[in-house]
Amino acid sequence: EVVPTCERYAVRRLPFARLADGDVAFFERLMPGRVLTGQEEVKPFNVDWLKSVRGCSQLVLKPQTTAEVSQILRYCYERNLAVNPQGGNTGLVGGSVPVFDEIILSTALMNQIISFDKVSGILVCQAGCVLERLSEYLEEQGFIMPLDLGAKGSCHIGGNVATNAGGLRLLRYGSLRGTVLGLEVVLADGSALDCLTSLRKDNTGYDLKQLFIGSEGTLGVITAVSILCPQRPKAVNVAFLGCQSFAKVLETFTTCRAMLGEILSAYEFMDEKCMELVERHLKLSSPVADSPFYVLIETSGSNSTHDEEKLNNFLERAMASGLVTDGTVATDNKKIKATAWVYGFLWSLVPQVLWSLRERITEALTHEGCVYKYDISLPVGRLYDLVTDMRARLGHSAKNVVGYGHLGDGNLHLNITAESYSHSLLDAIEPFVYEWTARCSGSISAEHGLGFKKKQFIQYSKPREAVLLMQRFKAMLDPKGILNPYKTLPSAP
Amino acid sequence: EVVPTCERYAVRRLPFARLADGDVAFFERLMPGRVLTGQEEVKPFNVDWLKSVRGCSQLVLKPQTTAEVSQILRYCYERNLAVNPQGGNTGLVGGSVPVFDEIILSTALMNQIISFDKVSGILVCQAGCVLERLSEYLEEQGFIMPLDLGAKGSCHIGGNVATNAGGLRLLRYGSLRGTVLGLEVVLADGSALDCLTSLRKDNTGYDLKQLFIGSEGTLGVITAVSILCPQRPKAVNVAFLGCQSFAKVLETFTTCRAMLGEILSAYEFMDEKCMELVERHLKLSSPVADSPFYVLIETSGSNSTHDEEKLNNFLERAMASGLVTDGTVATDNKKIKATAWVYGFLWSLVPQVLWSLRERITEALTHEGCVYKYDISLPVGRLYDLVTDMRARLGHSAKNVVGYGHLGDGNLHLNITAESYSHSLLDAIEPFVYEWTARCSGSISAEHGLGFKKKQFIQYSKPREAVLLMQRFKAMLDPKGILNPYKTLPSAP
Repeated sequence: EVVPTCERYAVRRLPFARLADGDVAFFERLMPGRVLTGQEEVKPFNVDWLKSVRGCSQLVLKPQTTAEVSQILRYCYERNLAVNPQGGNTGLVGGSVPVFDEIILSTALMNQIISFDKVSGILVCQAGCVLERLSEYLEEQGFIMPLDLGAKGSCHIGGNVATNAGGLRLLRYGSLRGTVLGLEVVLADGSALDCLTSLRKDNTGYDLKQLFIGSEGTLGVITAVSILCPQRPKAVNVAFLGCQSFAKVLETFTTCRAMLGEILSAYEFMDEKCMELVERHLKLSSPVADSPFYVLIETSGSNSTHDEEKLNNFLERAMASGLVTDGTVATDNKKIKATAWVYGFLWSLVPQVLWSLRERITEALTHEGCVYKYDISLPVGRLYDLVTDMRARLGHSAKNVVGYGHLGDGNLHLNITAESYSHSLLDAIEPFVYEWTARCSGSISAEHGLGFKKKQFIQYSKPREAVLLMQRFKAMLDPKGILNPYKTLPSAP
Repeated sequence: EVVPTCERYAVRRLPFARLADGDVAFFERLMPGRVLTGQEEVKPFNVDWLKSVRGCSQLVLKPQTTAEVSQILRYCYERNLAVNPQGGNTGLVGGSVPVFDEIILSTALMNQIISFDKVSGILVCQAGCVLERLSEYLEEQGFIMPLDLGAKGSCHIGGNVATNAGGLRLLRYGSLRGTVLGLEVVLADGSALDCLTSLRKDNTGYDLKQLFIGSEGTLGVITAVSILCPQRPKAVNVAFLGCQSFAKVLETFTTCRAMLGEILSAYEFMDEKCMELVERHLKLSSPVADSPFYVLIETSGSNSTHDEEKLNNFLERAMASGLVTDGTVATDNKKIKATAWVYGFLWSLVPQVLWSLRERITEALTHEGCVYKYDISLPVGRLYDLVTDMRARLGHSAKNVVGYGHLGDGNLHLNITAESYSHSLLDAIEPFVYEWTARCSGSISAEHGLGFKKKQFIQYSKPREAVLLMQRFKAMLDPKGILNPYKTLPSAP
C-alpha cells in the first residue's frame, strides 16, 4: 500500500470546500452512470503508474462533452471544490493524481475523433483519445502522430498536450508547441475557450493555446486538440549498435547526423545496466554483443533504396572507424528477406523488436523496487557525466544508477533504484542532482514536467521573475486555485 | 508624402504624456550619440516600408544593451510615455511605426551574436541582428537559419520573433514557436525577464516566451533570442514549373509531397499576373513558357545524388501526366554543368535566380501605386477561389488582383493594386475579404500579424472570449498600455 502523499511529504491541505452529499447528487444528475464514488472504483485513479504517490479523492467524474466539463468546473468553482484533471494517468512526477481529496475529472470517455483532413494532415479529436488508438487510425490513412512514447497504449492526447510530452519522435517532428495547431480549453470558472483552429499558420493575436501546453492542468482543462500529422514514412529502418564508450556514442551521433541528414528520426542511447535490467525482468534478449553503451538509430524516409543506402554508408563508416563494435538492423521493407547480411550487418527482426529494448526500460526499472526518476536536459557532451558522478556519490546505498534517453535532444533519463523508499537516499540525491544540472545550465525537467514531485525545485531552472510571472498567470486564470492544486507552481515557503 | 495615419484612419490619441525637453536630456545622458531628434533623421523611422502609414514621433532611441532597454522602459513607464519598438521596419500591417508621437525604440544597434554551439546548432544573439547577416554567419559554420523571407536583408531577428514571421522555410523547419528555444524580454515597467535558455527540451513550468512570440511588441520588448538552427543541406535544388490551372497546381503539390517526402523544403506558387509585374518592373525574365500559374519547388537534402533522383522521378511523372507543361531546374551542385538537359529538363542557373522571381513579387507590386495587401490562411483547395472571386467583384475598379504565396502552408498572399489610395475601393474589399475567409474558417492574417491595419478585424478569426483573454494579458503585463499602443488589440468600440 502506497503511503498517502500528504503524509509522506507533510503537505498542508488548502482551504477548499469538502465534498458533500449534495455535490455528488448534482453530478449524478448531470451525468448519470458516469460518477464513481465507491472506494474500490476510485482507488486506481488515486495512485500513479509508478505507485509512488497516492491521493484520497472520493469522486471520479467522467464527462463525455466539453459542455459537461464546463458545467463541472462552473459548479466546482462556485463551491470552491478542488479538481484534478486526469488523462491516462501515466505521468512520472505525481501530476496526475490528487494530493488530498480533489475531485478527479477523467477524460477517459472523451475519446472521439472529430475530423481528419487527408490533404493537410490535420487531426481534430477529443482530449481523451488514447495516443496509440490515434496512431492506428492515422496509419490506415497514410499518416502518423508527430509524437510517440512508451506509454502510448494508455496515455491520452489531452494529457500529452497538457504535459508537453516529448518522446521518441521529437528529434524529427519537433515539439507539440509546433505541431499542436489548436486547443479547446475549459477554464477554472467553467468558461470554454475555443482556440481549436486547424490552420498551419495564424498570426491573429497572442497564441493563447501555448499557455495551456505544458501547464499540467493548472490553468485549464484541455477538452479537444487540433494537431498536424506527418505523412507515414514509406521506409523505416532501425539500427541497434554497441559502443565501447560514451565518447563513441557522441561521435556516432555527430557522424550519423551528417550522413543520415533528413531521414534521421531518432537517436536513443542506453547504458549496459539498462540492458541488464531489460533482459532480467522482461526476458528480452540483446541482439548485439555486450557493450558498455547501446545506441538505437531510426531512419524514416520516402524512398527505401535511398534510405538503406544512406544507412549502410553510415554503418560501414561507423564500423570501419571503430565507433561501433557490433550492430543489427531491422527494416519494415518487405523486399529485404527476414534475415540477411548486408555490408556485414545482420538485417533481421522488425523495428518494433529493437524499439522495445529501449521503450521498456521504464517498465523494467519498476521491477527493481523503488525508483527515483530524473529527467534532465543537458548539453549533450555532459549528458553521461551526471550518471557517473551520481554513481560514485551514492556507492552501495543505491541498487542501480542507470542512464538512458533521447541523446539527440540532449535529454537524459537518470534513474536510481533501491529496495524501498528512503528519505536518506533521497537526501543524497537531491538537491545534488539539481545543483549539478543548474551548473550546466540544464533543465531539471526536460519532458516529464514538474507535477507534484519537482515543483519545489523550479528555481534551479527558472529565474525568480519567471516564477513570479507564472504565479500571476495562475492567479489571473484560476483565482481560487481550484485546478490541480499543489502542482507545478512552488508552494509558498 | 504619406498621409499621417491618425488623419487617414481618424484615430484618437490615448492620454499618454507628451515628450518634454527633460525627457530628451535624460536619454542623451543615458546613451549619448544614440538619440535621434532631428526631423529628417527621425523621418524614415516614422514611415513603413510600403509607405502606407506614417507616425509623427520626434524621438528615436538606439540602445545597445538589455540594461539600456530596461532603463528606457522604466523611465517611460514612470512618465507614461508611449513606446514603439522597431526592428528592421519591414512589416506589412503598420505594426512597426508609430501612429502618433510614440518614442521609437530601435534595435538597430543590438546586433551582436552572443554564442553559437556547433554541436547543438543553437544560436544566441541580440534582437537587432539582421536575418541575412545571421544566415551568412551560420552558413560558414555549416548551418542555416530555420526561417528565410524576402525582407531578409533588412529585417531583425527580434522583429521576426515578435511577429512570429513565417516565410519560405516554414514547410520544412516549422514555425518559430518550435525553433525559438529562449527569449530575453524587457517588460513595460522595465523589468527584464530572462528566459534565454538554450535547451531543446525544458518542461519546467509555463512556456512564458510563447506569449511574446507574435505579440508584435505589445507585451514586452524582445532583446535577445536563442534559436535552434538546422544543418546546412548539402544539396539544394529548385524547380520552376508552369501549370495550366490551379487544380494542376494542387495536384502537383500532392504528387511532389509524396515523391519528394522529407527533402521538400518549399512549395510556392504565383499567378501569371505576378510574373507579368516582375518582368515589367524588375526586368526579370521568366525561365519557362507563359502559363496561367507557376510553381517553385525547393528540395534540401544530405545526398545530392539521391535528391536529384527523387526530383527527376517527380518531374518525369509531372510532365508525363500533364500536371506541368514546362519547367526549368537549378542546382547548387557543382558537378552538374552550368547548363544541361536532364530527363528533358533544362538544368541551368543558380537556385537564387529562380527564387528571386518569387521573392521579389512584393517589391514589383510597390511599383504599381497603392497596394492593398491580404495575407490569408485557407484550406489549400480553396486558396485561389478568393482571388477569382475578388477579381470578379472589383472589376475595373482595381488595376490588378494577384495571388501568390506559400501553398504548402495554405497561405495566400492576395494583393490588389490601384493608382492611389481610395476609401471606396477599400470598402469594396473589406470586410468582404474577411467575411469570405471566416466562412472557410481561415485566418485573416497567416503570417503578417495584425499590427495597426488588421487589428479591428480580429473577430473574423478569433472568438470573443479569446480577444477578452488577450486584453487581460495585455492589462496584466502592461497596465498603462505604453507598449506599441493602437496595435494588435482592437480598440474599444
